[in-house]
Amino acid sequence: MANKTAGPEIERLIKLLARLPGLGPRSARKAALTLIKRRGDLLEPLTEALAEARDKISVCPECGNVDSLSPCSICQDPSRQRTMIVVVEEVGDLWALERAGVIKGLYHVLGGHLSPLDGIGPEDLNIGKLVERASAPEVREVVLALNATVEGQSTMHYVQDLLKPSGVTVSEIQKGVPIGGELDYLDEGTLAAAIKSRRPI
Amino acid sequence: MANKTAGPEIERLIKLLARLPGLGPRSARKAALTLIKRRGDLLEPLTEALAEARDKISVCPECGNVDSLSPCSICQDPSRQRTMIVVVEEVGDLWALERAGVIKGLYHVLGGHLSPLDGIGPEDLNIGKLVERASAPEVREVVLALNATVEGQSTMHYVQDLLKPSGVTVSEIQKGVPIGGELDYLDEGTLAAAIKSRRPI
Repeated sequence: MANKTAGPEIERLIKLLARLPGLGPRSARKAALTLIKRRGDLLEPLTEALAEARDKISVCPECGNVDSLSPCSICQDPSRQRTMIVVVEEVGDLWALERAGVIKGLYHVLGGHLSPLDGIGPEDLNIGKLVERASAPEVREVVLALNATVEGQSTMHYVQDLLKPSGVTVSEIQKGVPIGGELDYLDEGTLAAAIKSRRPI
Repeated sequence: MANKTAGPEIERLIKLLARLPGLGPRSARKAALTLIKRRGDLLEPLTEALAEARDKISVCPECGNVDSLSPCSICQDPSRQRTMIVVVEEVGDLWALERAGVIKGLYHVLGGHLSPLDGIGPEDLNIGKLVERASAPEVREVVLALNATVEGQSTMHYVQDLLKPSGVTVSEIQKGVPIGGELDYLDEGTLAAAIKSRRPI
């Protein structure tokens, strides 16, 4: 991976790029070269975009979203229903739900899931703030939109227990066959969930 | 791909990251989030590294390498043999040869290969400078280390013809079975080349 001859600046750039998810040592080298070759239309704009992100983007103190506004543009949006809080693991999940355009309420980003093996306990997640927000009088429902993984589900049960005293309705997203999914290619867990949650038509 | 809610700064960052080789729209989003989450140990250093690359890195006027020195550190290195010039398509190829540590001479980066279908002709490559360098009295041999692809090989023949008048020895790298390669898994072209170039043991 070392590039003795590439000079310390390029070497450092490659090392940092290799730490981005999706880029390994080899693709980081390719990315660095592309950046250097495409100075005007890629290196310079990306440098500015990163500097801007560094200077302007922060974590929303309310919901844990990342945005240039604080509180974030979703929390500030007057058209959002303040009766519903949708709990997700990561900001990427929030973005996915926004792309789907299905949420009229607010969000709460936990910042991950419980994972005792990795030493991630409740105190490492943004849970205390969720309990506080859920007990506000205008909140009627908390939707737990956590990943359908072992960690996501155990986090869901933990959060569900914590929210019980607030008296708010707690719901979870449905599990089943994904749209366009072919039964033959789906795992047993998904099929079992889809059968279990079957509904009359 | 759009992230209405993520704010224009993040949107712009994602779009630029998606233009790096190896990153698509989805992994660019993940990379942007990782950058924002890991501000101190990734976003800030990468911003600085890119700014440094922008300010310091340039293309070597001699050989076409990229470096913070100009001429590049290889061209400036007094321990390099000035009798041999190794011609490669891209800087990434130069790096690969340097990692292998097999070249004691200098390099020349063409900046690509001839590709009439893509409108890339001889005038788009760094060929004129190579002919000039090859005719210097100290140069004895030009090694054409171009890709063993159709485009690489036709570029090789083109460059070879241009170098004939200079009287310098022109050689090409050997084609054959890669080290560790199993015959059963190799393509016919490689096998044919390996048989054709067989040598007594």
